[in-house]
Amino acid sequence: MKTSFESDYNNGAHPEVICHLLETNGKQSQSYGFDEWSEQARQKIRTACQCPEADIFFLVGGTQANTTVIDGMLASYEGVIATRTGHINVHESGAVEAFGHKVIPLPSHSGKLDGKELEAWLQAFHADPTLEHMVIPGLVYITFPTELGTVYTSEEIAYIYNVCQRYELCLFIDGARLGYGLASAECDFDLPWLARHCDVFYIGGTKVGALCGEAVVFPRGNAPRHFMNIVKRHGALLAKSRLAGVQFDALFTDNLYLNIAKHAIDMAMKLRKLFSEAGIPLRDSSTNQQFVELTDAQMQALLPGVLFETWEPLDDNRTLCRFVTSWATTERDLKALKEALEAIR
Amino acid sequence: MKTSFESDYNNGAHPEVICHLLETNGKQSQSYGFDEWSEQARQKIRTACQCPEADIFFLVGGTQANTTVIDGMLASYEGVIATRTGHINVHESGAVEAFGHKVIPLPSHSGKLDGKELEAWLQAFHADPTLEHMVIPGLVYITFPTELGTVYTSEEIAYIYNVCQRYELCLFIDGARLGYGLASAECDFDLPWLARHCDVFYIGGTKVGALCGEAVVFPRGNAPRHFMNIVKRHGALLAKSRLAGVQFDALFTDNLYLNIAKHAIDMAMKLRKLFSEAGIPLRDSSTNQQFVELTDAQMQALLPGVLFETWEPLDDNRTLCRFVTSWATTERDLKALKEALEAIR
Amino acid sequence: MKTSFESDYNNGAHPEVICHLLETNGKQSQSYGFDEWSEQARQKIRTACQCPEADIFFLVGGTQANTTVIDGMLASYEGVIATRTGHINVHESGAVEAFGHKVIPLPSHSGKLDGKELEAWLQAFHADPTLEHMVIPGLVYITFPTELGTVYTSEEIAYIYNVCQRYELCLFIDGARLGYGLASAECDFDLPWLARHCDVFYIGGTKVGALCGEAVVFPRGNAPRHFMNIVKRHGALLAKSRLAGVQFDALFTDNLYLNIAKHAIDMAMKLRKLFSEAGIPLRDSSTNQQFVELTDAQMQALLPGVLFETWEPLDDNRTLCRFVTSWATTERDLKALKEALEAIR
Amino acid sequence: MKTSFESDYNNGAHPEVICHLLETNGKQSQSYGFDEWSEQARQKIRTACQCPEADIFFLVGGTQANTTVIDGMLASYEGVIATRTGHINVHESGAVEAFGHKVIPLPSHSGKLDGKELEAWLQAFHADPTLEHMVIPGLVYITFPTELGTVYTSEEIAYIYNVCQRYELCLFIDGARLGYGLASAECDFDLPWLARHCDVFYIGGTKVGALCGEAVVFPRGNAPRHFMNIVKRHGALLAKSRLAGVQFDALFTDNLYLNIAKHAIDMAMKLRKLFSEAGIPLRDSSTNQQFVELTDAQMQALLPGVLFETWEPLDDNRTLCRFVTSWATTERDLKALKEALEAIR
Repeated sequence: MKTSFESDYNNGAHPEVICHLLETNGKQSQSYGFDEWSEQARQKIRTACQCPEADIFFLVGGTQANTTVIDGMLASYEGVIATRTGHINVHESGAVEAFGHKVIPLPSHSGKLDGKELEAWLQAFHADPTLEHMVIPGLVYITFPTELGTVYTSEEIAYIYNVCQRYELCLFIDGARLGYGLASAECDFDLPWLARHCDVFYIGGTKVGALCGEAVVFPRGNAPRHFMNIVKRHGALLAKSRLAGVQFDALFTDNLYLNIAKHAIDMAMKLRKLFSEAGIPLRDSSTNQQFVELTDAQMQALLPGVLFETWEPLDDNRTLCRFVTSWATTERDLKALKEALEAIR
Repeated sequence: MKTSFESDYNNGAHPEVICHLLETNGKQSQSYGFDEWSEQARQKIRTACQCPEADIFFLVGGTQANTTVIDGMLASYEGVIATRTGHINVHESGAVEAFGHKVIPLPSHSGKLDGKELEAWLQAFHADPTLEHMVIPGLVYITFPTELGTVYTSEEIAYIYNVCQRYELCLFIDGARLGYGLASAECDFDLPWLARHCDVFYIGGTKVGALCGEAVVFPRGNAPRHFMNIVKRHGALLAKSRLAGVQFDALFTDNLYLNIAKHAIDMAMKLRKLFSEAGIPLRDSSTNQQFVELTDAQMQALLPGVLFETWEPLDDNRTLCRFVTSWATTERDLKALKEALEAIR
Repeated sequence: MKTSFESDYNNGAHPEVICHLLETNGKQSQSYGFDEWSEQARQKIRTACQCPEADIFFLVGGTQANTTVIDGMLASYEGVIATRTGHINVHESGAVEAFGHKVIPLPSHSGKLDGKELEAWLQAFHADPTLEHMVIPGLVYITFPTELGTVYTSEEIAYIYNVCQRYELCLFIDGARLGYGLASAECDFDLPWLARHCDVFYIGGTKVGALCGEAVVFPRGNAPRHFMNIVKRHGALLAKSRLAGVQFDALFTDNLYLNIAKHAIDMAMKLRKLFSEAGIPLRDSSTNQQFVELTDAQMQALLPGVLFETWEPLDDNRTLCRFVTSWATTERDLKALKEALEAIR
Repeated sequence: MKTSFESDYNNGAHPEVICHLLETNGKQSQSYGFDEWSEQARQKIRTACQCPEADIFFLVGGTQANTTVIDGMLASYEGVIATRTGHINVHESGAVEAFGHKVIPLPSHSGKLDGKELEAWLQAFHADPTLEHMVIPGLVYITFPTELGTVYTSEEIAYIYNVCQRYELCLFIDGARLGYGLASAECDFDLPWLARHCDVFYIGGTKVGALCGEAVVFPRGNAPRHFMNIVKRHGALLAKSRLAGVQFDALFTDNLYLNIAKHAIDMAMKLRKLFSEAGIPLRDSSTNQQFVELTDAQMQALLPGVLFETWEPLDDNRTLCRFVTSWATTERDLKALKEALEAIR
């Protein structure tokens, strides 16, 4: 069996999560979000976010959350601004466009949107005399942490959110890996701060200890009208909502969600050290995704024992590769990687 | 705690299903449908359907399965024929229309589509000189069993499928409650026969012992090209596909799926007997949904101890009510109902 | 050359209209709705409607106007109520669904929606506990006159509009043949009254003397925000908007629009008389569309000299046929029909 | 009255076109594309393209033609490749996305798509292991001439078409200004050659002498199945199709279409000369759109007498401005411009 650093999706649920599913399984419950655990989980998340008014909906996965929220927040003729590397622009098979909305791509800076570039773009847009022939931007979408493992500072997010407010755009933060961002050493804010600096975000469960589930949070009770119908229309309304409710109930008990994430970050930092010691260059990343520049020889040598993802070719001889840690990564995994790296020196 | 006959969604997973989730939780796996349990489950379903070539995809829920399959099988300008009471026409918040397709309603006969009426409609449609101004039908959608608990005979389905083939339409069978239909005493066919008499169907898991999951089966390897992209575009691609795969692996081991269903049908027939003995009229139904005509007085008397759904008002004094059994219904539940019924005589 | 009563579309433009196109052709103008004639036509229409605040947009055709207005007025998850025989439900190839909206069909009474049935349906809808799984109605669509030549009374429209207001729905009146309705002897209201009793309507030009063009009127300046972008997104923004503007400028000069319509109604009433005298049954209709019950023998006898449309088979031997008059119908046309009818006695 | 070089849309129809509308106005005709002039125009276009099998449809405008053709040619999950500056990506208010399709932007080289870049992109796309999470490209969209007035060589188009064929993509050429491209001195091919080197294109009428109308040509009878329904679903089916048919009948009689275009090109070349003589820099363009770099002072001096469009700011003091000629541009217009330019020396 290989040691896997391939993705956030290789493992089952965190033991506390799977146990909670087991221990609640025999009880009867309401469906469609009205079960007791969903309600409990909502309360715990409201507390964690210091948002007593928050509307919270549990959806199954990231693409589903993105397309449902974006479509729910936009008027038909509006589009969503994202970086060129944003997940919705690249890896969702056109799910946003399927609901009629254009993704308006702006430059990506290691995965991040630049607030000043956003501002300049909006300024130019509103000065454009052909505006009536264009897609009106209605929402800004950013990922935290980004697809490239980077994190925004509080200053950067505050700047973007301020621009959004001045131009009457909503800010939506895709938190598929939210825990890993909040647990990053570079992150200078917490969940309540985040909830105050956007219009909607989600707390990713699937990548952070659950089998499935994303908690969409409208922090100020600002869910779009008839959002349940919108969710249903997207085929996203979970019949046995206890499946998501129970898992988030576990994740938001005794700080499990953040503890899981911290563990993954610890492992990621140790993994960085192993590569550095082996003289292999890494991209900057303080989260659970690490991007490593491997030569073909190094890749071939590592592959028999270690699973990882090739990200993109760098030149004829080198490839950017992604190594991902998670709540499930163990010291034993790192030891196996260390030995594999020593073997290729 | 009340005894619940409210819906198929009140319970957790069947014990064998939840246990399989637990016992496989520690193993690492591929994602997006490529995990080992999804592959195993697909093989077992192929065997159960006697369809060695079948393409099988696991989706999360019924509305998602309906909208993804229908959109995947239709050209942009095509619509789907369903009965007026069909789930897609009534209770999916316009999920089919969201992807641009009209639901073309035909009369419902206790939930069933009449093959001869379908044929007459198609004949008239193709004779209509204004055809170029209309929605072209591309698919016929039926539910088995229907929303009203009825089941088609093999003759009825064969007739409909024959009409579809003559008019170059696909036939799609929504099997959200498939097990309960196959286990009905009135059902004169089995899973392999069904698989040979339609173009696509799904085996409902959520209502038949799983926490979530529907297995979409294209029996002759006839999935639309790029169906994975279509699934992703619908926000329906499960990242940790093991969640569905493990559950269907359990359901299709040792005949669990059908055994679960048979138990529910046994319970439903006993429940019918209880109402009959109490002199309360029931609609014909050989499946796990029973429709009972209650007076207001009867409803009020039952409500303190028994959960059920009001379906539709019949007149000033009587309401059609739905009582649902499932794999989780016990003799104790029936006893509680019996006592409640005796109390109101 | 046959005498044609086939459709509203057999003729070119009314002479005044085509002449105005010719006489303005040499002048330069702005585009996209900002040309001088569009502006003049808007002023004249505002005056005719007694709506000084009205927002007015010129679109090319009826289906385009319907789908653009409906999509522009609805939220993504909302649907539009229409009669089963409504043009959007039957003869627009799913243009409304293409933009994601369901057409919710209610019964048709000779083409008309019944206000009381609408009210009862809305009452039941809002009492339905499964409302979150349904399409929310956002708009009521009626045609005036209807596809079957009938006209609503002011009382009927006022009732429907009142229901709409109480249930927070908009009322949209498709006036593809508006002139012929207003000119009908049965019509007990005028254009200003109509404009006060709906949220949006259009004044059909294509069927009433223009080559193309429908004037969409939001009577109280209540066009949806960014409606120009919505129009453009529908591919419906006319580049050389003078084409529509010049035509409506002509139609709303010296009462041409209504005069044209009155002529057609006169001709239609004379046509009715010819059929009555020939002992051939007619459906009730006070507008320019007349529905006549012909035997097969009568149809075969008329066809060599007269063009008309077969509407629907009535029984083995009889067919409902449609005869349409327009601004272009002449006494000579009626004479030809009269002779043809005499020949078949 | 100012001299206008503002857009292709400032003028009415060419005299021959408006006269043909007048002289045919009194005749009765079929509708929805079946009128005699549409049929004649189709025959003349087939002859001009040397495509006896061509399917030809007349639509009203450019955005409508683009969105109808693109949606008609693509499967639901497919997207369309275009340059970043392509009209569908920038100036159609998201009409392509409204029908569910992503515009996949590639770099623009003075408006042109580079065949080698396209090839490299497609190669990388098909090697991408995450292909199932992406939008599948189904069509390549180019404009001839481009939005920036440039023209492809036959070699460039043949290269792109060859790439398309190898990757099973269709090639669609937006010919909103087709005549002005074919009449350009740089153009090394003719209409029949173009028709052999793409899967669908349209012959723009609105910008080349008509009041409205674009002739969509599927050169080898390769229109998508049920294309009439697709057109209707887009709200794009012209009821009185004679409006477009008569105009194209005139445009394709006695070579009018190309003669009109040639005149505009002559005027454009003379206009270039005027700017050059005035020492004002121009971008390369051999077609009817000329892009001129004006200082603020020059702009202010010209504006009182001459209409033109500001395209984009170049720096603090200079703006790129667009001057457009057409069939209607006269020597008198050029003289006025010349005098205005002399005045600002």
